[in-house]
Amino acid sequence: MNIEDIRDIAPFSFMTSETQEAMIQKARITELKKGQVLFIHEENADNFYLIDQGWIKLFRETFDGDQAVVDIMTNGHMFGDTSIFQEDIYPYSAEAAEPSRVIAFPIALLKKEIELNPKLAMNMLTSMARYRRQQDEELEHRTIQNAPQRIGCFLLKLTDQHQVGPVKIHLPYDKVLVASRLGMQPETFSRALKKLKNETGINISGSTIEIESLAQLSTYSCAACSSEFPCKDISLQDS
Amino acid sequence: MNIEDIRDIAPFSFMTSETQEAMIQKARITELKKGQVLFIHEENADNFYLIDQGWIKLFRETFDGDQAVVDIMTNGHMFGDTSIFQEDIYPYSAEAAEPSRVIAFPIALLKKEIELNPKLAMNMLTSMARYRRQQDEELEHRTIQNAPQRIGCFLLKLTDQHQVGPVKIHLPYDKVLVASRLGMQPETFSRALKKLKNETGINISGSTIEIESLAQLSTYSCAACSSEFPCKDISLQDS
Repeated sequence: MNIEDIRDIAPFSFMTSETQEAMIQKARITELKKGQVLFIHEENADNFYLIDQGWIKLFRETFDGDQAVVDIMTNGHMFGDTSIFQEDIYPYSAEAAEPSRVIAFPIALLKKEIELNPKLAMNMLTSMARYRRQQDEELEHRTIQNAPQRIGCFLLKLTDQHQVGPVKIHLPYDKVLVASRLGMQPETFSRALKKLKNETGINISGSTIEIESLAQLSTYSCAACSSEFPCKDISLQDS
Repeated sequence: MNIEDIRDIAPFSFMTSETQEAMIQKARITELKKGQVLFIHEENADNFYLIDQGWIKLFRETFDGDQAVVDIMTNGHMFGDTSIFQEDIYPYSAEAAEPSRVIAFPIALLKKEIELNPKLAMNMLTSMARYRRQQDEELEHRTIQNAPQRIGCFLLKLTDQHQVGPVKIHLPYDKVLVASRLGMQPETFSRALKKLKNETGINISGSTIEIESLAQLSTYSCAACSSEFPCKDISLQDS
């Protein structure tokens, strides 16, 4: 994207034109190789980031050395911004899950603007509430959905849910990462994917998945969800 | 609590004195029996609530009729407030997990004040970021901790974590509910509690649990966590 275009997208669109200008002046574009680490959990947060292209994995590590994936985000999403409300410390580590391009902005500028600009604060509150709703749903799914249903749900969120007829999906990053995004061991993921195929009749070939109709998957997965299909959260995100 | 005392607690302490006065005038105290429902998921949100006494369960139900517990909160905690950012619709149902007393406040007053008052907005953003951090940790634990470790973590969060020497804990609500708060089936919970007892040597008698020292539990549970013991989030909550 052209850096000037941030003026048109939230949260930048809610900032004063002076702050927008300062953001554009201070923006720093970084190209990341797959696996390259951007920052580490509990480091001092100097920047927040906008993803221009690629996939960024946010994660934390336990003392036993296990890795928990917090989120995997793509184009147009921001991360690192909530450090402002957490004593300016990153609440997770970030690395490129695929070759990526991110834009770094000084977090101090964002903090100052939020404190002075109620419209920006409202926008940040709204997106945090949406994220909270998604986290609640994720927790719900880990409790109630079985592993094949969770994979079905993940696939449905990659589609235009209003589409009619056959749908082809490409997994956006490798299967091991999809498994960890869903909180599954790779073996559990493989078994569950096979079961999903048997139960719903979807076709899997490498990282391409063919579905005859979305109803095939949604009937199976969304019975164990408290939200309706098509997912409201996704349409909110688009709006 | 005396309703006048809300002036001293967040988020009310960040409001203008006019809004504080309006909140106090419009406050409505409700006594709830155990199991009594306060509102239902997706109802229009007219009020937000402060818990004066007791335990409130927030939950959602799937189309299959399963229940997912979003949270179980006690004295001093607020709920229903984030409906403001979700089209004024409750994102969960709420019922009393134990006999409780809650105070209802008009959500329209809160909304108006947030839009005008950056300090209040900052306070709400900070508490939402803290909640988000807790949700991330909860998701991490469901992925990485085993069931006995998760019960150990739950118990540790009920204690003063800086305490030295023997500790006695009373479960705040019944075991079936603790199980559902942790996303476990009651049978899984019973087995896991027995295993926790065997592995750490804690004593369990009804709903009372005796621990020789907190290290007994924290060594066992916190190895599979990305945060240090004592938990930072809890100390943040107290501040």
